[in-house]
Amino acid sequence: MNYSGRLRRLRLELEENNLDWLLVTHLPNIRYLCGFTGSAASLLVGGRGYVLITDGRYRTQAKQEVRGARVAIARKSPLVAAADYLGERLAVRRRRSPPNLALVGIEPDSITLGVHDRFAATLKGKVRLRSAPPLVERARMVKDADEILRIRRAVELGASLFAIACKEIRPGVREVEVAAAMEYAARCAGAEGMSFSTILASGVRSAIVHGRASRAPIARRGFVVCDFGVILADYCSDRTRTVHVGRVSTEARRLYAAVLEAQLAAIAAVRPGVSCAEVDEVARGVLRQHKLARYFAHSTGHGLGLEIHEAPRLAAGQSQKLEPGMVITIEPGAYVPGKWGVRIEDVVVVTASGCEVLTPTDKELVVI
Amino acid sequence: MNYSGRLRRLRLELEENNLDWLLVTHLPNIRYLCGFTGSAASLLVGGRGYVLITDGRYRTQAKQEVRGARVAIARKSPLVAAADYLGERLAVRRRRSPPNLALVGIEPDSITLGVHDRFAATLKGKVRLRSAPPLVERARMVKDADEILRIRRAVELGASLFAIACKEIRPGVREVEVAAAMEYAARCAGAEGMSFSTILASGVRSAIVHGRASRAPIARRGFVVCDFGVILADYCSDRTRTVHVGRVSTEARRLYAAVLEAQLAAIAAVRPGVSCAEVDEVARGVLRQHKLARYFAHSTGHGLGLEIHEAPRLAAGQSQKLEPGMVITIEPGAYVPGKWGVRIEDVVVVTASGCEVLTPTDKELVVI
Repeated sequence: MNYSGRLRRLRLELEENNLDWLLVTHLPNIRYLCGFTGSAASLLVGGRGYVLITDGRYRTQAKQEVRGARVAIARKSPLVAAADYLGERLAVRRRRSPPNLALVGIEPDSITLGVHDRFAATLKGKVRLRSAPPLVERARMVKDADEILRIRRAVELGASLFAIACKEIRPGVREVEVAAAMEYAARCAGAEGMSFSTILASGVRSAIVHGRASRAPIARRGFVVCDFGVILADYCSDRTRTVHVGRVSTEARRLYAAVLEAQLAAIAAVRPGVSCAEVDEVARGVLRQHKLARYFAHSTGHGLGLEIHEAPRLAAGQSQKLEPGMVITIEPGAYVPGKWGVRIEDVVVVTASGCEVLTPTDKELVVI
Repeated sequence: MNYSGRLRRLRLELEENNLDWLLVTHLPNIRYLCGFTGSAASLLVGGRGYVLITDGRYRTQAKQEVRGARVAIARKSPLVAAADYLGERLAVRRRRSPPNLALVGIEPDSITLGVHDRFAATLKGKVRLRSAPPLVERARMVKDADEILRIRRAVELGASLFAIACKEIRPGVREVEVAAAMEYAARCAGAEGMSFSTILASGVRSAIVHGRASRAPIARRGFVVCDFGVILADYCSDRTRTVHVGRVSTEARRLYAAVLEAQLAAIAAVRPGVSCAEVDEVARGVLRQHKLARYFAHSTGHGLGLEIHEAPRLAAGQSQKLEPGMVITIEPGAYVPGKWGVRIEDVVVVTASGCEVLTPTDKELVVI
């Protein structure tokens, strides 16, 4: 990963935004910028360079992981240490003539109010704090070749788990046993873990959008929604397939076909320059034609990468335009409470002329 | 779980703190207070009752899970909806004579600065916002009988995984394969998942405090730190055992014995009225006698329950006194960078006269 390039580009962005420093506190942003994967850190960007501050637990790990930034081990919390560091640096700066207070950008959607207030109290009169725009999140929206390669591998591994699900899903088997078999295979293949709690929802539970695998046995008949992803070499995959156990009614076939039609239409709509809201509306429009729009109670998709949910968001009102290199999910669904639900999801990479579905597969209804 | 009792007690606390409402945004606090496990919600407590606000994805799930509070499904984000709700309720209140602005408490360590600013802008002139003390976190520190039973079961399941680790750990086997076998067993036994990324660090990697299981093969000789926990029925377990592969040097035996001595001394020091700092100092003192204190770069333990890390924290400077019903880890360690590391950890419940170690086991060094 080109950490130095990312840090340099961010520094240029700071200049354009008239910020002297950016205090990066969102851990995935820190990972993106310098490779550090620990659970406690802050990264200062600006002035004379890049300083990753963490605590004693991560001394060895930080040395191994961090590229492009200097590592400082703090006895205090990394944020208090960042405040001290800035206080010292900026005491020098204030001796300049004319004296002026440096402008430090913070990440308002990562820093908590409590931490912000303590940070501000420590630096009172020494710096001006300002909520920065989501500079790192914006950079992360468009993936570079290294990242797309990693996501591709994660999605390939993720896709292979569906075959295991199909083998394990049988009436009476507990949902969580199916999930366990998938997760075991993922770990043995080197995944750091799952990118979210595996969703495996059978029978009436398929109507629960986030129906995490439970101890409930697979129903004798009905849909089973399988929504699962891995984290491989830091990057997430995400995929949903819905299978059917037992004889499929005409109504069930129609529901599945409608959701698949919505998904294919949305995928076909993905290309540079189209807004996220437009793609969402394509999926929603198809379901509306089938009188299913009111059963589609979530957005059509989301970006993914170091995080399972990141920008952009494919939902009504989202004017963000798609760009080549963005990696997003397309996942319409329809859920009738107390009855059943269907969702179909793939990860796609926006290309110069449209998009590429990662690890494309046949999506005809699998009947078990 | 006695959700109604928890909500009632919180409401009394609000009165004592002169708050008209508390906006609960920390999801584990919401789960503690009304049982909701979804990923997007806010809970309003005060005035005329309790309202859990979530979005359309969780309509069915909220109905099934929430006890003691009314459920409102919002078209907007749960926080924006909470602001709207308060705005409407408080418009009524302002017509009172004399008019006064209601005081709404927020959780400063959960709400982000960005969300707070948007919330405050929506409610400007309608309410006064104030950072509330950690009322729910304080209540959660002392577990009730239902919670201790759940933690006990989680720890029992967690403890059973160590036998699997001992069976799987062999030179050349990948760390992640050992973790995979443990996690598979946990899931098949009904765990919702692991309470954190399984740590399995062999050879020189044992010196990395948070050495998550990697693709590295187990070394032919040296320590293997195994730190693992499950989530079972919402509650976390946490346990560390360090085993040794191959012939054990006298120096290795001494290191292990010193860490075990520190752990047993700290456990013996746990009783009501003792401060968290004192327990930490007992462990640190033993390691100091063995000239190992500088290799002990983390705190002695932490509370656990719905979260893997919650209050109290057993570290220097922590004046919080232990009380019966608190559930904490005791986990001293010593890590020599580039060489090796040892950590030994148990979960204990503070009792009226001391503490009970959950699922106690023999802790003599296991040699593989």
